[in-house]
Amino acid sequence: MNDLKFGLIGLGYWGPNLVRNFISTKRCDLVAISDLQASRLENIKINYPGISTYTNADDIIKNKDIEAIIIATPVFSHFQLAKAALENGKHVLIEKPIASSVHEAEILIELALQKNKTLMVDHTFLYTGAVRKIKELVDNGTIGKIKYIDSTRINLGLFQPDINVLWDLAPHDIAILNFITKEKPMAVHAIGICHTGNGIENIAYLTLKYEEDMIAHFNCSWTSPVKIRKFLIGGDKKMIVYDDMEPTEKVKLYDTGYDHKSEEDKRRVLVDYRTGDIFVPKLSTTEALIGVANDFIDSITKQTIPVSDANLGLNVVRVLEAAQKSIKQQGKEILIKYS
Amino acid sequence: MNDLKFGLIGLGYWGPNLVRNFISTKRCDLVAISDLQASRLENIKINYPGISTYTNADDIIKNKDIEAIIIATPVFSHFQLAKAALENGKHVLIEKPIASSVHEAEILIELALQKNKTLMVDHTFLYTGAVRKIKELVDNGTIGKIKYIDSTRINLGLFQPDINVLWDLAPHDIAILNFITKEKPMAVHAIGICHTGNGIENIAYLTLKYEEDMIAHFNCSWTSPVKIRKFLIGGDKKMIVYDDMEPTEKVKLYDTGYDHKSEEDKRRVLVDYRTGDIFVPKLSTTEALIGVANDFIDSITKQTIPVSDANLGLNVVRVLEAAQKSIKQQGKEILIKYS
Amino acid sequence: MNDLKFGLIGLGYWGPNLVRNFISTKRCDLVAISDLQASRLENIKINYPGISTYTNADDIIKNKDIEAIIIATPVFSHFQLAKAALENGKHVLIEKPIASSVHEAEILIELALQKNKTLMVDHTFLYTGAVRKIKELVDNGTIGKIKYIDSTRINLGLFQPDINVLWDLAPHDIAILNFITKEKPMAVHAIGICHTGNGIENIAYLTLKYEEDMIAHFNCSWTSPVKIRKFLIGGDKKMIVYDDMEPTEKVKLYDTGYDHKSEEDKRRVLVDYRTGDIFVPKLSTTEALIGVANDFIDSITKQTIPVSDANLGLNVVRVLEAAQKSIKQQGKEILIKYS
Amino acid sequence: MNDLKFGLIGLGYWGPNLVRNFISTKRCDLVAISDLQASRLENIKINYPGISTYTNADDIIKNKDIEAIIIATPVFSHFQLAKAALENGKHVLIEKPIASSVHEAEILIELALQKNKTLMVDHTFLYTGAVRKIKELVDNGTIGKIKYIDSTRINLGLFQPDINVLWDLAPHDIAILNFITKEKPMAVHAIGICHTGNGIENIAYLTLKYEEDMIAHFNCSWTSPVKIRKFLIGGDKKMIVYDDMEPTEKVKLYDTGYDHKSEEDKRRVLVDYRTGDIFVPKLSTTEALIGVANDFIDSITKQTIPVSDANLGLNVVRVLEAAQKSIKQQGKEILIKYS
Repeated sequence: MNDLKFGLIGLGYWGPNLVRNFISTKRCDLVAISDLQASRLENIKINYPGISTYTNADDIIKNKDIEAIIIATPVFSHFQLAKAALENGKHVLIEKPIASSVHEAEILIELALQKNKTLMVDHTFLYTGAVRKIKELVDNGTIGKIKYIDSTRINLGLFQPDINVLWDLAPHDIAILNFITKEKPMAVHAIGICHTGNGIENIAYLTLKYEEDMIAHFNCSWTSPVKIRKFLIGGDKKMIVYDDMEPTEKVKLYDTGYDHKSEEDKRRVLVDYRTGDIFVPKLSTTEALIGVANDFIDSITKQTIPVSDANLGLNVVRVLEAAQKSIKQQGKEILIKYS
Repeated sequence: MNDLKFGLIGLGYWGPNLVRNFISTKRCDLVAISDLQASRLENIKINYPGISTYTNADDIIKNKDIEAIIIATPVFSHFQLAKAALENGKHVLIEKPIASSVHEAEILIELALQKNKTLMVDHTFLYTGAVRKIKELVDNGTIGKIKYIDSTRINLGLFQPDINVLWDLAPHDIAILNFITKEKPMAVHAIGICHTGNGIENIAYLTLKYEEDMIAHFNCSWTSPVKIRKFLIGGDKKMIVYDDMEPTEKVKLYDTGYDHKSEEDKRRVLVDYRTGDIFVPKLSTTEALIGVANDFIDSITKQTIPVSDANLGLNVVRVLEAAQKSIKQQGKEILIKYS
Repeated sequence: MNDLKFGLIGLGYWGPNLVRNFISTKRCDLVAISDLQASRLENIKINYPGISTYTNADDIIKNKDIEAIIIATPVFSHFQLAKAALENGKHVLIEKPIASSVHEAEILIELALQKNKTLMVDHTFLYTGAVRKIKELVDNGTIGKIKYIDSTRINLGLFQPDINVLWDLAPHDIAILNFITKEKPMAVHAIGICHTGNGIENIAYLTLKYEEDMIAHFNCSWTSPVKIRKFLIGGDKKMIVYDDMEPTEKVKLYDTGYDHKSEEDKRRVLVDYRTGDIFVPKLSTTEALIGVANDFIDSITKQTIPVSDANLGLNVVRVLEAAQKSIKQQGKEILIKYS
Repeated sequence: MNDLKFGLIGLGYWGPNLVRNFISTKRCDLVAISDLQASRLENIKINYPGISTYTNADDIIKNKDIEAIIIATPVFSHFQLAKAALENGKHVLIEKPIASSVHEAEILIELALQKNKTLMVDHTFLYTGAVRKIKELVDNGTIGKIKYIDSTRINLGLFQPDINVLWDLAPHDIAILNFITKEKPMAVHAIGICHTGNGIENIAYLTLKYEEDMIAHFNCSWTSPVKIRKFLIGGDKKMIVYDDMEPTEKVKLYDTGYDHKSEEDKRRVLVDYRTGDIFVPKLSTTEALIGVANDFIDSITKQTIPVSDANLGLNVVRVLEAAQKSIKQQGKEILIKYS
């Protein structure tokens, strides 16, 4: 038995993974789970008879014994549920993205500050061995100054009924971007298309511009016959290819570059390039969600700031919201506001 | 000995391949080659003593015995050389892209019409077994209506000193697009960045919009540590992945789709997807440039219209010119004009 | 509640997977689990409080309520445990291989016959979508007569302390071989080497000879830096490559062959070959162990003969035992006896 | 013009590559080429009018102006041609394998010694950037003591009418083995099968035994639907995977090992393993045949001993001859004699 009592709202696609991982930390007690669909609660009743189940989230939000709540519901409901949880004095972990708009995210952050509670977002990728290694290679100067990010995150389905492909897939990339670099994008271009007659884009291309000569591009699709998860980071010293479809060799560091060979070359606009050795670091294989769970628990028990805190989550939504505007205005450049 | 006497201008990167392939057809005599750099002509003198060599292109253009001229020089010189060649009554094959602007291309086309000479562009990819098979799968209805094209064509170098990455790499993709579908893009968005201090973009993202619900996206870079040549075609019946880095299994046909399962699903905006068998057709392995050479020779001897004719070349430049404008206007949408 | 009550002995590496899958069938009640190490039973107590746990297998074997027993212990203990279970009137499913020797396997089979109980071996691979598809392609004549099998099954670890690499890895391949072809190998050659100073071979090469002009070769290693699972089947019409490391495209059918082009070629011993299209069938993605569980349950409730029955398991051990002899005699040919 | 005049005998599959590379060294004059089939000489006449062509090899062997002869004919003719060339005082480079038997190879070596002429074998792989890098990693102790070699060299065709798959493909692997390690195999096991009715094995498995606890295994086939060129080297410190089908990342160095963790583990025969970083060194991309040509020319002009000298070539034939005997005796162990 632990002192910390947790509740979880939402047992859809991701919820069961959260249940399994929070339990495996053995640092908290998951005492209550709710879902609107009673059928989803059946397996919990059978396998975890000690956990109370509800079809009304309020039964968790208003439970005085519960200190922290994990919200794994569809995006549109994040704001209301998180707001109610914070108002009831709970620490909150929300599935990504934190909310449906910058405005909502800012209200939640303000509320968490007032209540002095943790508000964290489950950007799981930030807790993978691959992304941790990439951050290390950026932070210790190995790759030099980042010049470009180029991500392809495409596959077939799962089509979401309430958010488009950008809100579904790009949060992973934008969160990684926020995690590994302090540079803030100043503008966004996005173009999307809907092939399913419901107004929800299934393909979208997103480009971020920076004050520095850096660029980021994200290619997202639910309608690719092949699954690709390829994330390139070009530094001015070395470059990284992060291929999440590789079973173990996910991160490769290329000793690759390009430059003018001489002043004369520079004058004649001649650019030469260099290829070199490749290094494939061993990665930690700890399950990322365990890291999420421990970071959330630490933030409560040790008052630490989680890696994937609400401010990072807000920055992700800033980009998504601007991208959405850009898509609706046929790819027009949209400036990102930082308050 | 053949009746057809050919000349070639430009012995840089691509020229020697043209020499080798035109000779191997045994349907024409390559009698003269010119290059501004005399050193490049040395190997010709040693290996092909029967070919005359010049450092002045005029010696070829004004040679009355020569019926057709192959131009494999940098892009900026295409127009002047091709114009002079046509004016001197020669058939002309030009390296891609046909010219530096729509205006130039239109003048050349008009001139070729007046002179009743062939004007062809060397869009080599249209003559590969892979692209031929793709066209067959589109034309016979196998993949259904094309919904998207998504190409990634990135590698390290070769940096060009006179054209940016889009003018260097995208012509391949745009030519393939023009070859396999009759749909004409109506607008272009392009964003690029230059990391080499010479104003020449080394990364560029190009999106084409169509009247129909179709989209095309091209990701081009000279600064990727890995070489990727991946071209996805999403039809409403099946999808194709064309991976030119595969040694033999370049084209894969996926029996993959997505749709509403029922009217109820449609109302609830639920989209389901389907995966199925994959088919990897055997491809012709004839060298593509032999096809280019034979198509050019046929157009002269048999008055056929080459697959890669000047009008297709003009359409490629229409997209490139609009893309260039879009890049210079920060990704603004640029309409493509068809006269 | 189900009428069928099952017990499981052995909660090591594989046991928990059996637990999870048998429970998920909902066609039997797993009522008792034993393991010599009490610590391994802790998770069961927490997650499945309804299951009784024991450190003595006898408590399961002698439990009159239990109708069937699953044995997932080290190989050396299979015989004694299975014998006791059968003698106590239980149906038995044993982890592969069925026993440590042909003699033991034969005794178990005889005993099962006498007691009229199921004796089945968990050759899981026979229940995968990939192997099922391969069997279909063999049975319906697609690939023609099998000419060769060539399997590479190598990786780093897990080193076993009681059996060598051949007894650990080859059972998968030999079982597949027995499943897809009725041909029986008549002799075996095997060569192995031990690099760990404990007399247990960590690399072994096994070749099976047949009366017909067919051959099978298995390359097994615990000491490869890369994991390879590649199984080639050469038919006289087509060939199959089964690569179990591919996430989805595991089975590829090649329209590939070789033959004399003409009688003249045959006389001059000239052989020509042919390559063609490749077909990648969609595979069932049902977890293989569910198939094992259902096949075992069916054999009890419907008196069916399981795919992976004891006779197939005996044939696997026939090859392993002969291979072991061959290794100890420096690769000498050992004939396989069929009684 | 160079002082060194060379002749070449045999313009089949490999001959044209030798022609191109020897010419490109610009260190010798290729003055004469012969082939029994006059048609093969046509291209030479057209492209290299300065080279004399013959259908009788004697016209080259007896030409007093020619100092060195390259023999690229079928294996059965190597001995007679090389013997005649040496007797006529020529330096000799022979396509691999050096001869059809140990006996023949020894006669040639003895003759070269008497005549004080170079006798070299074209084991091209020894001149690749990949094999050079591997030798460096072995020689500088990086991988430690070699424990095993495991090579898979399989593809479809080209079926040879005079030699079996072992004599065709294994020379590459055996030569590499001889190049990178001083260990000499003491015995050979080989098993083969012929599926083409001409008595020539199209599949063969070869195992080499050493006095030390080292083993080498070669899997050769002309009847695989896929082309595999995978060469594993297991050292007791690190391991190498050399995949010749990779376009650039051919050599990967794995910081991988296995050992007993403690004396207690050793007693309990428990072996643990370790995985670590991977290093992919940049390889020289110089064409290997240029290296062969230069090494041959150096041996003549500078009296150096070529890397791929006749003694290495003899060791290759020692293994091939023993393997052939083993195949004919159903895989019996055959000792290798070193004189």
